Amino acid sequence: MVGTAETSAGVSAAQPSPGERAAMERAVDLARRGPAHGPNPRVGAVLLDASGAVLAEGWHAGAGTPHAEVAALTAAARSGADVRGATAVVTLEPCDHTGRTGPCSRALIEAGVARVVYAVDDPNPDAAGGAARLRSAGVDVVGGVLAGAARELLRPWLAAVEQGRPFVTLKLASSLDGRVAAADGSSRWITGTVARRHAHELREEVDAIVVGTGTALQDDPSLTARTADGTLTEHQPLRVVVGFRAVPGDSRLRGPGGPLLTLATHDPAEVLAALAEREVRHVLLEGGPTLAAAFLRARLVDEVHAYIAPVLLGAGRSSVADLGVSTIDEAVRLRPREVRPLGPDVLVVADATWEGRED
Amino acid sequence: MVGTAETSAGVSAAQPSPGERAAMERAVDLARRGPAHGPNPRVGAVLLDASGAVLAEGWHAGAGTPHAEVAALTAAARSGADVRGATAVVTLEPCDHTGRTGPCSRALIEAGVARVVYAVDDPNPDAAGGAARLRSAGVDVVGGVLAGAARELLRPWLAAVEQGRPFVTLKLASSLDGRVAAADGSSRWITGTVARRHAHELREEVDAIVVGTGTALQDDPSLTARTADGTLTEHQPLRVVVGFRAVPGDSRLRGPGGPLLTLATHDPAEVLAALAEREVRHVLLEGGPTLAAAFLRARLVDEVHAYIAPVLLGAGRSSVADLGVSTIDEAVRLRPREVRPLGPDVLVVADATWEGRED
Repeated sequence: MVGTAETSAGVSAAQPSPGERAAMERAVDLARRGPAHGPNPRVGAVLLDASGAVLAEGWHAGAGTPHAEVAALTAAARSGADVRGATAVVTLEPCDHTGRTGPCSRALIEAGVARVVYAVDDPNPDAAGGAARLRSAGVDVVGGVLAGAARELLRPWLAAVEQGRPFVTLKLASSLDGRVAAADGSSRWITGTVARRHAHELREEVDAIVVGTGTALQDDPSLTARTADGTLTEHQPLRVVVGFRAVPGDSRLRGPGGPLLTLATHDPAEVLAALAEREVRHVLLEGGPTLAAAFLRARLVDEVHAYIAPVLLGAGRSSVADLGVSTIDEAVRLRPREVRPLGPDVLVVADATWEGRED
Repeated sequence: MVGTAETSAGVSAAQPSPGERAAMERAVDLARRGPAHGPNPRVGAVLLDASGAVLAEGWHAGAGTPHAEVAALTAAARSGADVRGATAVVTLEPCDHTGRTGPCSRALIEAGVARVVYAVDDPNPDAAGGAARLRSAGVDVVGGVLAGAARELLRPWLAAVEQGRPFVTLKLASSLDGRVAAADGSSRWITGTVARRHAHELREEVDAIVVGTGTALQDDPSLTARTADGTLTEHQPLRVVVGFRAVPGDSRLRGPGGPLLTLATHDPAEVLAALAEREVRHVLLEGGPTLAAAFLRARLVDEVHAYIAPVLLGAGRSSVADLGVSTIDEAVRLRPREVRPLGPDVLVVADATWEGRED
């Protein structure tokens, strides 16, 4: 999409200027300041005057707070900058939707912004239409600028909105020979401190952690996001237990941490529907093997984070239960996106594309 | 050891000169030209005159050919260079042993070499003593120069000589969930072409490939080293089948490739003793899970090469059979040396240190 532009009227630059591209890079950085979790996307915005100088910046700090464009307009107003005729550079197409806040398209039009450069089209059917609204008001609009970088930042959120269900990350933590626990069920700690630290950072980014009752009963996990010294981080994901057995009253899941939600079902689609209703965009599936297999069989896994420890066990629970795969051609083949040593362990991040493998 | 020196007589430099260190780097490069397989170590040698100029170079090209020092002396003689008073820079302590060739210590003394700078002490009790012999003849000797780089090149050979048995590399090739085959036994191809290519390069470096009769019968492997186009490489490792069942007459193991050796035992120590008698220094253990477990239980594995494919199977043979590990604290913990993406797969190379893990 980069370099294309549709203009409704008047003189317009179909291509973003170098200054606008630089402002988009800045806007992507600003977007990162927002929380990765929550129902809303991370968005950044930069306002440029006619000469290309930065008038103001803004970013979205989470649901219930102003959108990035409005935050930038507010910052400009606060500093007394005149935004009439300005260009707004935004990482996501401005919304045209009244939710917790008013539509950004209207705010930009009312402020007198003359041109909007954005990165990613809004996939949200409720919120889309901002570009069209802006154009019909005579605003120059260029989309698709640095869309790759902005999409990467929005990946789970975009997938969730596009698929109409939460984005699912399946976490596996196993020995080199694929065991998640020794023969007696003991599993602390297969992976080392660096890998566990990384896993806690991921917990802080997601909206919900899902486990089966088997894991809840056997391991008594707390499913909290903690810092290196063990204290709880500010954001605590929703804790979800799937299955028909009760979570005991003295379970760590009922201790400090996010709210506990129990879902009496074994159907992954039902789980995701229930979470979508709660505006969950990103789910971390933490176990056990049976739940992992159920989601994989239902093709409801978007990516896999596999932490592999340089440990051999030779026996014990495998990381994934029966997938209904009987021959090698039916294997679930993933597309690796990242391979990273984490202390003595290795993290493999791979996309579940549900397609044939390139080789 | 770098920087230490013992001199028997006269004026001597206890420290290697910058020129000598540079010559050692060159000698390590020369050593790489020799074959990684075979009973003898890879060694390189550079002869310097009194001014530090290179007189001649040599390397060991495999059992039955001259040692590196002698190759360098021969090259010097051929070019008419005068080596009296020269310095010999060698990656391994010159031998003092008459084997297939005469002792290098004598050859250096007879040639009138005045100083010897070497990297690694010879661990071979039959061949050691070269440094002492040289010193008693009045030659300046400095050991331990760039010993790290030279040891790395000689790693399997040094370990084999020091341990009095072949160095054992265990190869595992599995799915992310630790399976080596699907439920029906099918396993071609879990890993991709890049990983298989890498595995063939390793086969070319070892002296023997060992499998159990289960693998020999079930997979009918050829256990040959092949190039990308499928042709056999020049060196073919010994093919060793361990167990009591017969290898069928029409097995691929009886086809083109290295010699076939069958060993009617299940005892890893007996296997290695039989191979040590045949001057095998480096063994590649390719499967299956039962043989891998037997070697691991006997603590007769030195390193693990784990090829991990981004594939999930959920069922099928695991890469390692029962290790007698019942609780997580008894897990076999390895020390990773290298993590490398190979196409879509990951290679983890780890040392089996048989020690507690740092974490």
